[in-house]
Amino acid sequence: MTILDAALPAFLGDLAGDAEVAAEIDGLAQLAAMLRVEAALADVEAELGLIPSDAPPAIARAAERLAGDLDPGELAAAAARDGVVVPELVRRLRAAAGSAGDYVHHGATSQDIVDSAWACCLSRALCVMEARVQRIGDALADLAETHRVTPTLARTRMQQAAPTSFGLKAAQWLAPLIAHRRALSRLRAAELCVSLGGAAGTQAALGERARAVEEGLAARLGLAVAPLPWHVRREGMVAIGATLASCAASAGKTAQDLLLMGQNEVGEVSFADAGGSSAMAHKRNPVRAEAVLALARHAGAQQAALQAAALPIHERDGAAWLQEQLAWGPLLLAVGAALAGAERMLETLEVHADRLRANLKAAPEPVRAGGAGEATAMIDRTLAAWRAG
Amino acid sequence: MTILDAALPAFLGDLAGDAEVAAEIDGLAQLAAMLRVEAALADVEAELGLIPSDAPPAIARAAERLAGDLDPGELAAAAARDGVVVPELVRRLRAAAGSAGDYVHHGATSQDIVDSAWACCLSRALCVMEARVQRIGDALADLAETHRVTPTLARTRMQQAAPTSFGLKAAQWLAPLIAHRRALSRLRAAELCVSLGGAAGTQAALGERARAVEEGLAARLGLAVAPLPWHVRREGMVAIGATLASCAASAGKTAQDLLLMGQNEVGEVSFADAGGSSAMAHKRNPVRAEAVLALARHAGAQQAALQAAALPIHERDGAAWLQEQLAWGPLLLAVGAALAGAERMLETLEVHADRLRANLKAAPEPVRAGGAGEATAMIDRTLAAWRAG
Amino acid sequence: MTILDAALPAFLGDLAGDAEVAAEIDGLAQLAAMLRVEAALADVEAELGLIPSDAPPAIARAAERLAGDLDPGELAAAAARDGVVVPELVRRLRAAAGSAGDYVHHGATSQDIVDSAWACCLSRALCVMEARVQRIGDALADLAETHRVTPTLARTRMQQAAPTSFGLKAAQWLAPLIAHRRALSRLRAAELCVSLGGAAGTQAALGERARAVEEGLAARLGLAVAPLPWHVRREGMVAIGATLASCAASAGKTAQDLLLMGQNEVGEVSFADAGGSSAMAHKRNPVRAEAVLALARHAGAQQAALQAAALPIHERDGAAWLQEQLAWGPLLLAVGAALAGAERMLETLEVHADRLRANLKAAPEPVRAGGAGEATAMIDRTLAAWRAG
Amino acid sequence: MTILDAALPAFLGDLAGDAEVAAEIDGLAQLAAMLRVEAALADVEAELGLIPSDAPPAIARAAERLAGDLDPGELAAAAARDGVVVPELVRRLRAAAGSAGDYVHHGATSQDIVDSAWACCLSRALCVMEARVQRIGDALADLAETHRVTPTLARTRMQQAAPTSFGLKAAQWLAPLIAHRRALSRLRAAELCVSLGGAAGTQAALGERARAVEEGLAARLGLAVAPLPWHVRREGMVAIGATLASCAASAGKTAQDLLLMGQNEVGEVSFADAGGSSAMAHKRNPVRAEAVLALARHAGAQQAALQAAALPIHERDGAAWLQEQLAWGPLLLAVGAALAGAERMLETLEVHADRLRANLKAAPEPVRAGGAGEATAMIDRTLAAWRAG
Repeated sequence: MTILDAALPAFLGDLAGDAEVAAEIDGLAQLAAMLRVEAALADVEAELGLIPSDAPPAIARAAERLAGDLDPGELAAAAARDGVVVPELVRRLRAAAGSAGDYVHHGATSQDIVDSAWACCLSRALCVMEARVQRIGDALADLAETHRVTPTLARTRMQQAAPTSFGLKAAQWLAPLIAHRRALSRLRAAELCVSLGGAAGTQAALGERARAVEEGLAARLGLAVAPLPWHVRREGMVAIGATLASCAASAGKTAQDLLLMGQNEVGEVSFADAGGSSAMAHKRNPVRAEAVLALARHAGAQQAALQAAALPIHERDGAAWLQEQLAWGPLLLAVGAALAGAERMLETLEVHADRLRANLKAAPEPVRAGGAGEATAMIDRTLAAWRAG
Repeated sequence: MTILDAALPAFLGDLAGDAEVAAEIDGLAQLAAMLRVEAALADVEAELGLIPSDAPPAIARAAERLAGDLDPGELAAAAARDGVVVPELVRRLRAAAGSAGDYVHHGATSQDIVDSAWACCLSRALCVMEARVQRIGDALADLAETHRVTPTLARTRMQQAAPTSFGLKAAQWLAPLIAHRRALSRLRAAELCVSLGGAAGTQAALGERARAVEEGLAARLGLAVAPLPWHVRREGMVAIGATLASCAASAGKTAQDLLLMGQNEVGEVSFADAGGSSAMAHKRNPVRAEAVLALARHAGAQQAALQAAALPIHERDGAAWLQEQLAWGPLLLAVGAALAGAERMLETLEVHADRLRANLKAAPEPVRAGGAGEATAMIDRTLAAWRAG
Repeated sequence: MTILDAALPAFLGDLAGDAEVAAEIDGLAQLAAMLRVEAALADVEAELGLIPSDAPPAIARAAERLAGDLDPGELAAAAARDGVVVPELVRRLRAAAGSAGDYVHHGATSQDIVDSAWACCLSRALCVMEARVQRIGDALADLAETHRVTPTLARTRMQQAAPTSFGLKAAQWLAPLIAHRRALSRLRAAELCVSLGGAAGTQAALGERARAVEEGLAARLGLAVAPLPWHVRREGMVAIGATLASCAASAGKTAQDLLLMGQNEVGEVSFADAGGSSAMAHKRNPVRAEAVLALARHAGAQQAALQAAALPIHERDGAAWLQEQLAWGPLLLAVGAALAGAERMLETLEVHADRLRANLKAAPEPVRAGGAGEATAMIDRTLAAWRAG
Repeated sequence: MTILDAALPAFLGDLAGDAEVAAEIDGLAQLAAMLRVEAALADVEAELGLIPSDAPPAIARAAERLAGDLDPGELAAAAARDGVVVPELVRRLRAAAGSAGDYVHHGATSQDIVDSAWACCLSRALCVMEARVQRIGDALADLAETHRVTPTLARTRMQQAAPTSFGLKAAQWLAPLIAHRRALSRLRAAELCVSLGGAAGTQAALGERARAVEEGLAARLGLAVAPLPWHVRREGMVAIGATLASCAASAGKTAQDLLLMGQNEVGEVSFADAGGSSAMAHKRNPVRAEAVLALARHAGAQQAALQAAALPIHERDGAAWLQEQLAWGPLLLAVGAALAGAERMLETLEVHADRLRANLKAAPEPVRAGGAGEATAMIDRTLAAWRAG
């Protein structure tokens, strides 16, 4: 347990962790998904006559029982020996499945199971992310609507520049989410593929029914099929990671702007749940916004770690593959916590319209000259695009 | 000039540089594009009655003349003073345009010009990249076709694993290009938007004709329009950068596999243009493949630099924006050189089918048992997907 | 718990985790260190007459009791509210210390406690790392000694090049450890400083005894003192992180060379504990070496994450500080696991001297011409430098 | 030329380039250094009787002549063929040296020449950097001295926190430079080693005089010697890169703080050379400080690129080596420009002491209560440490 608490101290869990995403991708969730993949594989193989028709129910029951019993840490020694947890998992599943055990894992290789299971986990994690993006966007849309004509200062290069509306600022925070929502949904549908290449990626053990097995397995798991195995093609993974980091960056940009607007000298926003200080009782700290910004930057670094893993060797690369796995956890947690934090940040956001106006009014004449131009048209276009889904 | 030769020594230009991409994105190309944007802006503004109708021809002539005369380095002092090259460029364009000079840059801000010009440059650079991806893919498709049933070893975790076909290896290198080609084309059409926000991103100086100007400008420049300015929304830039880095990674994976297959002890491939050594006359070095691999990894690091820039502040962020500009050059050159290098690498590739067969034959029995399974079906699916374009 | 198991699945704990390092830096270890810092602070303050002399024993007892009782996750809600765990920890410590509670945390700010505690944790983690570097170096020194004149092939640019000795290869793997050992020890002594700046980094609450308190605290904690607080000076942290990543890279280079030498076609080394495959019973996979390589690359990416955090704002930056904390856990675990993995890899390494000779003998004449030159002199110099310590 | 202008447009050269550093590391400087290395090698070899004593003068003359004549771009085709520029350079040098040509490059390999020359170039670039760090530190020391007791606000977590002195802020910016200055000087002396391993890193062609040649060459070039070749040991390069990135980060932190203090609502500092806007004549933009911040972040990303290259294969790795070379140029230019920019930024800095005082006075009572504590003692300690050198 200490290993895990070392990656992210539990006491930072509510600030920089993400229990909801974690539940979809943690060790237990991954193992449970691997067992579901094995059970589904047996099911489709029986349907296609590759294994006896009475094997799948026994395998499914054994898989479910095993999933309920597993202690991920207990498998660590075997996983370290084999370089992957599947061989030990298969041994246990075979033992638990009695005479049906012989038909477990037929035609598959470890990476098929791990990658298919990961695609399932990632699919659910993406659903969580998409729901958050939707809620963040809805909150920003409300802000944009409410403050459609609330006058305020636009600031460029750290200097007061010209009038704008707070609603346009909110629309600017909202706009990238339109693209993110679309990209996440597209990538989830297209890039989360079942893996069933077998030992060498040739499906040699499945013969001419291979494609049918692959398609049946994909259907059962809710995954797509690729023209050929993705053991050493990780461009889909990289694209998902890059999109997620970009989602976090959008949340981080919003947080950063709000932090600047919340400086005492600016005072345009504050947060209802601002944090306390151990040395300064009077301080009210925008800790949630700070966390969102930190997580956005951290997500960027983790995305770089993921990208760096996308140079696998030959038909399977134990180093690049582990490198990818090492990058995913921190990346997903950082993005998840950034989005969850952004939701919370917006829920507790207090916009001080009077101060927005006052700051504009107090600006030198050349700055406050003119109006907010086409801000409302831009806001309306953005809201329409967001609401069009 | 030494500044530039320091970023990448000219003597490495044919190995790690890319003259074709450079010509689309270098300082001169950027300045020329900025001048075209100013000319197009005047043109559409005159059409919409915002400026006199006789201004555009004079501005266009002045812009063309200026573009032919510019020494990018000469503008460096002014760009350092203003933080961006546009104010000085506009001064010169106004001076050159005579009485039409008053109508130059109407309603625009520096970032509108720089970002619109950059979208134009990037569009052309992407076309170069897409053509290369197409040629690389065609070469790999030929390889896959030719070696559809050439038996060889699949290797997993750095060990001989099982039979496969060399054609399937080639299909594995080809498959990601299907996604890359589609992504590049989609991003080029959707994410390269005209920028016309004006000083504070509100189009205040253009009034209710603002959207019409924006659309007219986009049409003239071959760019898309966004619901609102992208001064501080860089998710499109980041998505393009991530896709490009992923293209380079695919080339790098191919290069890395070929380097391993080209080891003397393996001997399955070699390169017709292998390089010489200053100390070992007998050596034949796979320098092009090494360069592709180096460039792929370097591109990944540059993509991280680009991603890190995507946290701009308020309505314009001079730091984040410059940070993005600093990342683009090295990223585009690295990706471009990786793709150009991959083309050359494949042109000079010599596949030793006899050795492919021999190595398989020499492997221990459990390794060479069985055949290449469904390799040909996979190859055919991949070729069909590639050719369906 | 699932949050943590998500950052690194427990089933990968023996391959990519590090229980020994984790025990020094995990949430519980950090909290215990924070409590020790508070107790030591009270102790020195009482000695200097700043708080009553009977407070420290009560505080120390309370701190010890509290440390034994803490559930890090229980503090997460308060830490999320305050942005840091210290305010809640101080509340609990005050409550537990009875009347002495008033003297807890006197003159300190949260970051003083967190940073001082982190310096203590990091000091112990570095000791673990240094011991591993020493053992890896000793193992490599033995290899270099044993194979001082074992002839083998030097390979350059992925091609056979010329004769060398296996001992020289081992000396090459050893040599960087001489610098790493020295750097780690120097950084541990010089850069792990106590933090005692108080609310604004001015030690205002401690008055003219401030420096004496700081020095007394440093002495009690085994830390150094800096000329002024390091709340927003993180160059020491970055230097430690860079050195650790470099240690991991050295281990990774060794692993990568061994992976290449262990290819079937090369066969010069193998590993006694090679892993099994779920689909290929005959396979023996060098999984430990692969993990070391993966961890070395991952450590590099995490070092970049740490470096990116080193731009804190003003007198305290909640975002940059959290960003640094998010980077440390994955970085230390990756480096720790890489070093532990390298130890294990070398313990199980089997060097096939006959094959080393045979491969050289089988090389073309120009390659095998000549001898290993000054290899033994180089080896001896390296061994002497290592042993001089 | 366009290739180079693409890496960094010439018009950004005064903002984000560095002509002084570039002159030490650009293609021409590298080639000239390579020729100096070849000449020095001949010189020491003649002295030790390995080549005829009349060869060195002829080689030195030829090297000088060649250095004056070279067009780096002209060598690009040969460098791309050989993977390194040295073979072609040696061909030309041999041709130019007449009968002495036979004695050129005796016992060396290309990487010896490139790495030794690079160490020479880097040494000079580091001298430039060190001089800048010294000047920046002196400017900050003056600021700290001048504003020893100028009262101002400390700000923590983006909120006003407590009183401090502006001098202490300056001392905080100064303090890391003490460590950087020491580290740069130490690394320059210890880690810039001559390279003379020969083809396989065994010095086979030099026989028992090898070490003497190496030491003589080091003495002539002003470099150190390592126990054994550093062809594939890059930990010294990585350490230098990490220290440089950390220097840039320190400059970036200063710039970021000044940007925040220069916001209109804060108004505590401004810059004498603030830049103009193309759309807002009234704007005065802190463009130099923005550039320093951008360059500091960019330098961090480039340092990550350098770190990622430190996993070379076997006795020479053409991919990792090129990857390192690709990272150095952008890294050195970014750090150099960040430091040069910081110098300029401090020269033009205007500190508004009245506003510093006024902002403090206007803060709520709990914020402005108390004084700057031990700020002067901290400042004095820092100044003493800086001046002690």
